[in-house]
Amino acid sequence: MRPVAIIGTGITKFGELWEQSLRDLFTEAALKAVEHSKAPRLDALYVGCMAPGLFNGQEHLGALAADYLGMGPIPATRVESACASGGLALLQAVIAVGSGVYDYVLAGGVEKMNDVSGGAATLALGTAADGDYELFFGATFPSLYALMATAHMARHGTTREMLTAVAVKNHFHGSKNPNAQYPFEIKPAAVADSPLVAEPLHLLDCSPITDGAAAVVVAPLDLAKKLVKKPVVVSGFGHATDTLALHHRDDMTELKAVALAARKAYGMAKLAPKDIHVAEVHDCFTIAEIMTCEALGFAKPGEGGRIALKGETRLGGRIPVNTSGGLKAKGHPVGATGVAQIVELVAQLRGEAGARQVKGAKVGLAQNMGGTGASSTVTILEVTK
Amino acid sequence: MRPVAIIGTGITKFGELWEQSLRDLFTEAALKAVEHSKAPRLDALYVGCMAPGLFNGQEHLGALAADYLGMGPIPATRVESACASGGLALLQAVIAVGSGVYDYVLAGGVEKMNDVSGGAATLALGTAADGDYELFFGATFPSLYALMATAHMARHGTTREMLTAVAVKNHFHGSKNPNAQYPFEIKPAAVADSPLVAEPLHLLDCSPITDGAAAVVVAPLDLAKKLVKKPVVVSGFGHATDTLALHHRDDMTELKAVALAARKAYGMAKLAPKDIHVAEVHDCFTIAEIMTCEALGFAKPGEGGRIALKGETRLGGRIPVNTSGGLKAKGHPVGATGVAQIVELVAQLRGEAGARQVKGAKVGLAQNMGGTGASSTVTILEVTK
Repeated sequence: MRPVAIIGTGITKFGELWEQSLRDLFTEAALKAVEHSKAPRLDALYVGCMAPGLFNGQEHLGALAADYLGMGPIPATRVESACASGGLALLQAVIAVGSGVYDYVLAGGVEKMNDVSGGAATLALGTAADGDYELFFGATFPSLYALMATAHMARHGTTREMLTAVAVKNHFHGSKNPNAQYPFEIKPAAVADSPLVAEPLHLLDCSPITDGAAAVVVAPLDLAKKLVKKPVVVSGFGHATDTLALHHRDDMTELKAVALAARKAYGMAKLAPKDIHVAEVHDCFTIAEIMTCEALGFAKPGEGGRIALKGETRLGGRIPVNTSGGLKAKGHPVGATGVAQIVELVAQLRGEAGARQVKGAKVGLAQNMGGTGASSTVTILEVTK
Repeated sequence: MRPVAIIGTGITKFGELWEQSLRDLFTEAALKAVEHSKAPRLDALYVGCMAPGLFNGQEHLGALAADYLGMGPIPATRVESACASGGLALLQAVIAVGSGVYDYVLAGGVEKMNDVSGGAATLALGTAADGDYELFFGATFPSLYALMATAHMARHGTTREMLTAVAVKNHFHGSKNPNAQYPFEIKPAAVADSPLVAEPLHLLDCSPITDGAAAVVVAPLDLAKKLVKKPVVVSGFGHATDTLALHHRDDMTELKAVALAARKAYGMAKLAPKDIHVAEVHDCFTIAEIMTCEALGFAKPGEGGRIALKGETRLGGRIPVNTSGGLKAKGHPVGATGVAQIVELVAQLRGEAGARQVKGAKVGLAQNMGGTGASSTVTILEVTK
């Protein structure tokens, strides 16, 4: 596979965007990415979206995206892997460019979740679980992650304060991101004082229901170098799956698909966890960030909460995690999330992240997952000199 | 991109399969394909499925497929492009193997449509149209294809007899396919005597609501040659899009995305329409087969109905089309259709198609489309010596 780089990015405001439809959101992010990339054309596009049928009464997203972007008749493919749809759309674009079939490919992600009310949104998201064994018996994602949190607390001594540290840190980062849904800080006491959703998870442990879109343009590295000053190379990627149902796993305090995807990505990039300068990980709930940091090797098993409490994952810390605000504060339009992570990393690696810049960041890692970790992608990016 | 071949195929019975769930169907077809292929392992899988959220309350199909196939933790990706989801899943698998990232990849397709009643199925299928401009105003697919048929009749003199010829021919072919939903012949008079769905389309002009799955295993040609006697090479492919809404097109008697995808596929394979020995095309309605035969170059513009009436597309004719029975008689589990076409062609090219064998078939073409042709894939297959 030939080397592939990211040459442009685009993102919308994240939030409750009552004035913009599904197609509006995708088109805004995609046009920004195309303009930013200076690509002479697009040869194909991939769009990650989880459940537009349930949220918006619209499938056939690829054709819709190409049509409204004004890029028809280019090949356009929708990719779905629940909340990892965006990360997977990027990987398909990277593989397609790497294969030589296409040169300039857009990878976007979008979700317009506020077209339905809260209960319907929770049910739509619930289709990422094992329908026959989880959702149909009443298990929704807050309850499944609550089980994981309870098990992690019991086995590793993870505490309320550690979960809180993740939420407070991500809101601190989000306060520096004007595109974030909740661009403000929260006090530690506010987390435990917020309504209980599924014990031990409170409202401020949970990512919100969000509308938004993000897009990037990828190209072969040799062409990328001619177009932009600082192409960001995709130096490693991995993708793996786990059982769809949580109770089918040997151990629900580990995220095996994340660990396996990371191992592949580190191997391809010839890098180790200590080489990563900045990371965007999938904090759909505070416990998810803790478990993900362990699976990625940023913390030893069971230590994910402690590194958050010590400030190691905060801006200025050993390994800043979710400088964008993460899913918690930036928002979580599920199909867009994996691509939005890449948008943040590209800004960081180019030194264009403003108030939330990680000094000297040259290597970044994005981790995006679906369900309770039944699918996960890990992507490693490096800026060229 | 290195050359890629198909080394194994699997398919379920198509029909109203009350005893099998979505996951059962996918797993049956996939296991058959893996066993048939003699592949030493699977490195990844792609699954095409249109609307499992709306039909079955289940998204995250990739992880589900890998899990129930017993193949987790392999990377697994769901691809959606409405009724072209299966064709696109195959193309992603071909590109992934072609890129060198993976060696043995399964491409499957599945749809379990009878979990909902007829009206809900029509609405779920309607999400392949432009929601904001078509479905929400009451246009469903029978009515949209009825508009296309009316326009084609007015412009080209296509007649009721020509539409009927397509249905009768596909049921004749389907009568020789034990996996078909309707494996029986119909008389010409039965078509016009069947209930009118949307003038001029009668019930027997329409493909049915179907449960079913199909799968193939692809591999690099050099490895394929060591495993199976007659690997079938993917010698060309194309993929293109058109406006999602029918009324946004300059001309609704042409299928531009099909023509463009075909041009790419013919170019890659260095072949012309006259070189094709057998074809599977997307006859979701009788008029669709007529228009598709024109877009693929099997007939001149406006002559698609006449070649059906003359028997040129029948077994033994100049270019046999839909020897499987097509979507009309074999059935149309939408996400599975594009892969089922490949299963039929592989059998034809290996000389294993039994009573419906096209004598001496060495080159086959599959065409799969979504919506009213807003997305289309074309794949050309050739058997190696």
